[in-house]
Amino acid sequence: MHLLLSVLDLAGTFVFAISGAMAAAHRRLDIFGIAVLAFATGTVGGITRDLLIGATPPLAIADPRYALMALGAAIVVFFGHRLVDRIQSPVALFDAAGLSMFAVTGTIRALDFGISPVMAAVLGMVTGIGGGIMRDVLIARIPTVLQQVELYATAALAGSALTVLGVTLDWPFVPTVIGAAVLCFFLRLMALRRGWHLPAPRVGK
Amino acid sequence: MHLLLSVLDLAGTFVFAISGAMAAAHRRLDIFGIAVLAFATGTVGGITRDLLIGATPPLAIADPRYALMALGAAIVVFFGHRLVDRIQSPVALFDAAGLSMFAVTGTIRALDFGISPVMAAVLGMVTGIGGGIMRDVLIARIPTVLQQVELYATAALAGSALTVLGVTLDWPFVPTVIGAAVLCFFLRLMALRRGWHLPAPRVGK
Amino acid sequence: MHLLLSVLDLAGTFVFAISGAMAAAHRRLDIFGIAVLAFATGTVGGITRDLLIGATPPLAIADPRYALMALGAAIVVFFGHRLVDRIQSPVALFDAAGLSMFAVTGTIRALDFGISPVMAAVLGMVTGIGGGIMRDVLIARIPTVLQQVELYATAALAGSALTVLGVTLDWPFVPTVIGAAVLCFFLRLMALRRGWHLPAPRVGK
Repeated sequence: MHLLLSVLDLAGTFVFAISGAMAAAHRRLDIFGIAVLAFATGTVGGITRDLLIGATPPLAIADPRYALMALGAAIVVFFGHRLVDRIQSPVALFDAAGLSMFAVTGTIRALDFGISPVMAAVLGMVTGIGGGIMRDVLIARIPTVLQQVELYATAALAGSALTVLGVTLDWPFVPTVIGAAVLCFFLRLMALRRGWHLPAPRVGK
Repeated sequence: MHLLLSVLDLAGTFVFAISGAMAAAHRRLDIFGIAVLAFATGTVGGITRDLLIGATPPLAIADPRYALMALGAAIVVFFGHRLVDRIQSPVALFDAAGLSMFAVTGTIRALDFGISPVMAAVLGMVTGIGGGIMRDVLIARIPTVLQQVELYATAALAGSALTVLGVTLDWPFVPTVIGAAVLCFFLRLMALRRGWHLPAPRVGK
Repeated sequence: MHLLLSVLDLAGTFVFAISGAMAAAHRRLDIFGIAVLAFATGTVGGITRDLLIGATPPLAIADPRYALMALGAAIVVFFGHRLVDRIQSPVALFDAAGLSMFAVTGTIRALDFGISPVMAAVLGMVTGIGGGIMRDVLIARIPTVLQQVELYATAALAGSALTVLGVTLDWPFVPTVIGAAVLCFFLRLMALRRGWHLPAPRVGK
């Protein structure tokens, strides 16, 4: 795998794991609950993607660095959650960073395994949103992807679609990857800070 | 795959996706939340089955027509949810139709991959109930399969067991498939409209 | 597979299935809901492990004895739940027994499939906690692994880590396996009866 992709994938795991660990800390779980939620949030998206494309054992199981990232995030949160909590809505913000990196790395890994461009974009989105869904299901909350009339999966799909476009049209690799991640992060940040959203249907019931 | 099975599988994806999209619309999710819930409800049963029998990448990932069915259902619901809502309990009804088709197609696909008859019937049931479970878990509701003292998984198992029986005894293919789907749909409809159910234990606590 | 492992794996399936079936009975589900929750609780941990290590179809799908164990547990609970309920907190107790057996068998199976020692211990823990998580998610409860400041995943990890240690250092097989399972069960029991726990962070919010 390209070095930039490895770095993004491990960094995505770390920030997602921070998001899961903070959610666990807010629920006053013990150090082990924090570690479990950090690991689940950081790796479930990529594991789901790898199961779907038939890449077993998944990266996050075969490569111990992913577990180390999650463990590091759990330790950071256990000792430093007060510092992290000074950031406004840290769970959502670290989630947004992970979403952006995973949408891009997930898309490229799916393309590498011969998945068609359209489904590769979908798989990139799944990689991005999977960890957050698992985090929210485990603490019995309606997943962010569903509960808010806000850009979330849309932001991930924008990032993964731009990645597919760039790879297909043979754009320079590094700017494409970084540009797609930045696009996703920007859209999600605008959703969080400015309330950007898609239209919702009006239903009687 | 036999043409009838392809048609049933795609039709099952569409009606399950309608069920998921209507559930999303009732929760006032945006167009993208509707699309995500449509895709999840329509494909998770089949994806789970394919992962369990080792058929990766799963049909719903490898074949873009499944995603198209889900997208179509999301668009129908976004623009036409008022029309769909004139049907009595549309989520449950479209769910019942998907349950019936998937119980049959899931069973036959498991048999094709060399799974034993008993476990093929179980996998057919899993294919049928998986999408609805995912839909309900994602909107933080106790899954239909568990919350009601009503025929649900039983109906799916009746359909998949009849399919196994017919295939094993070499009955004519088309009537077997249609008969099994109709049996499942009839049982589930009677459960919804007449309250047919299995006995429940009386527990003190 | 070593006979002792087969016995532990099937026994673990049975006791986990009892735990799931009792949880279903307490929710007044019908016989089929009981069977579904028994099957899910008894097999999801092992199925998840097998998917992650690439062993498809998973044991619990390929070998009908697992489904038989779950069915047996469902029947025992349907007719005998009053007897089972005389035990103090039966759901948690049978869960603890299953946790202990699966932590050990899951670890050894992962090692057999060439997973590294550290990730094999993690997979053993996942095998142990997976079924209980699925049971709790399906009945819309925060999973035990997260909701209590009590030893749970920690107990499973202690068992799986001791298993990895014993296998790596070539300790005699049978005492290692039994000792590791007893260690996990003892830790979980002390957590349930005496409230043993790990430290939790103090968070402002």
